Amino acid sequence: MQYLEKKVRDSMEYYSGQINKLIEELSRLPGIGAKSAQRLAFHIINMPKEQVDALTGTIQTAKNTVRYCNNCCTLTDGELCPICSNPKRNQRVIMVVENPRDLVAYEKTQKFDGVYHVLHGAISPMLGIGPADIRLKELILRLQGEVDEVILATNSSLEGETTAMYMSKLIKPSGIKVTRIASGVPVGGDLEYIDEVTLLRALEGRTEL
Amino acid sequence: MQYLEKKVRDSMEYYSGQINKLIEELSRLPGIGAKSAQRLAFHIINMPKEQVDALTGTIQTAKNTVRYCNNCCTLTDGELCPICSNPKRNQRVIMVVENPRDLVAYEKTQKFDGVYHVLHGAISPMLGIGPADIRLKELILRLQGEVDEVILATNSSLEGETTAMYMSKLIKPSGIKVTRIASGVPVGGDLEYIDEVTLLRALEGRTEL
Repeated sequence: MQYLEKKVRDSMEYYSGQINKLIEELSRLPGIGAKSAQRLAFHIINMPKEQVDALTGTIQTAKNTVRYCNNCCTLTDGELCPICSNPKRNQRVIMVVENPRDLVAYEKTQKFDGVYHVLHGAISPMLGIGPADIRLKELILRLQGEVDEVILATNSSLEGETTAMYMSKLIKPSGIKVTRIASGVPVGGDLEYIDEVTLLRALEGRTEL
Repeated sequence: MQYLEKKVRDSMEYYSGQINKLIEELSRLPGIGAKSAQRLAFHIINMPKEQVDALTGTIQTAKNTVRYCNNCCTLTDGELCPICSNPKRNQRVIMVVENPRDLVAYEKTQKFDGVYHVLHGAISPMLGIGPADIRLKELILRLQGEVDEVILATNSSLEGETTAMYMSKLIKPSGIKVTRIASGVPVGGDLEYIDEVTLLRALEGRTEL
């Protein structure tokens, strides 16, 4: 990261003021390194004015209109997201995910008919992110209603596991069924390339055929 | 590309209107695929309002103020770029490059004290880009002045080579010295991983020690 920042600074000596500012601004976005920021900056400068206006306009509109769903906290345009307002979805089964992209990943399977709760993050003592910094309070409030099962679908990372453990301890005393999605060898995965922790998890989670 | 576009469309069913528009707009930028566009969109929506304003403001300012240098056609804020207006640079030696990033790459060597000419592209019959579509006319006009040498530093790609050949034929009759940067094994390059064409070029271009 520091190396990249240094590289941005290095190239900046050679560009003029406004180009530098644009490169700097773009390189702050996630996944945009020094080289990509330069490429994007030149592309934007060479784009027709209408396209640039469309880009900045869409960014501003999205920023100003997109909000959290009143129920599940995913990002949406209205009060409730399309999933929470869909009467066909089973509101008594809540899958808890870290972010809206995870929600979309499960929606793509087209097999889950429950609803979601989006935490917008995971507990990470390393990064100083505690339970109060994610949308956990909103989940607990939802559990006052009629809920049969909470499926913990946070990532299989250290932070995701910590968050799942924390939520499990918090929810279990209320008597609501709490489950965790399985961890194991991905479909199509080749055993020899899979790390030991995953292999052990797959073994522990084996099911009878 | 078509596959990526399909993937963007696939995920779009699951997002709300304004998020979709933002993802679509971002995925039009070069090097931004479907996944990156989604990640960027969510990042932008979660950014503080001032940062979003800074981003869109910088894009608009850059688009509206950055222009081509009157002399070498690189992108700059004023009439002339810092290199063309620097009296210490040798205005009689012109290095021709495809784009401003290539100019910066050579500036970083800190060993070239001549000036540049930026073509903003290369001749590509495949893409329908002819000599009139790049800033070649501007170069020819500059050669009316006192010029000792034109160094052709277009890329070592098919388009770059074609452009260099074309320029060479165009300029040579005027008696101005025309040179081409060397092509060969990159420093630190391992012969066994280098393609045959490069190896042949390196052999042809060998120099006596």
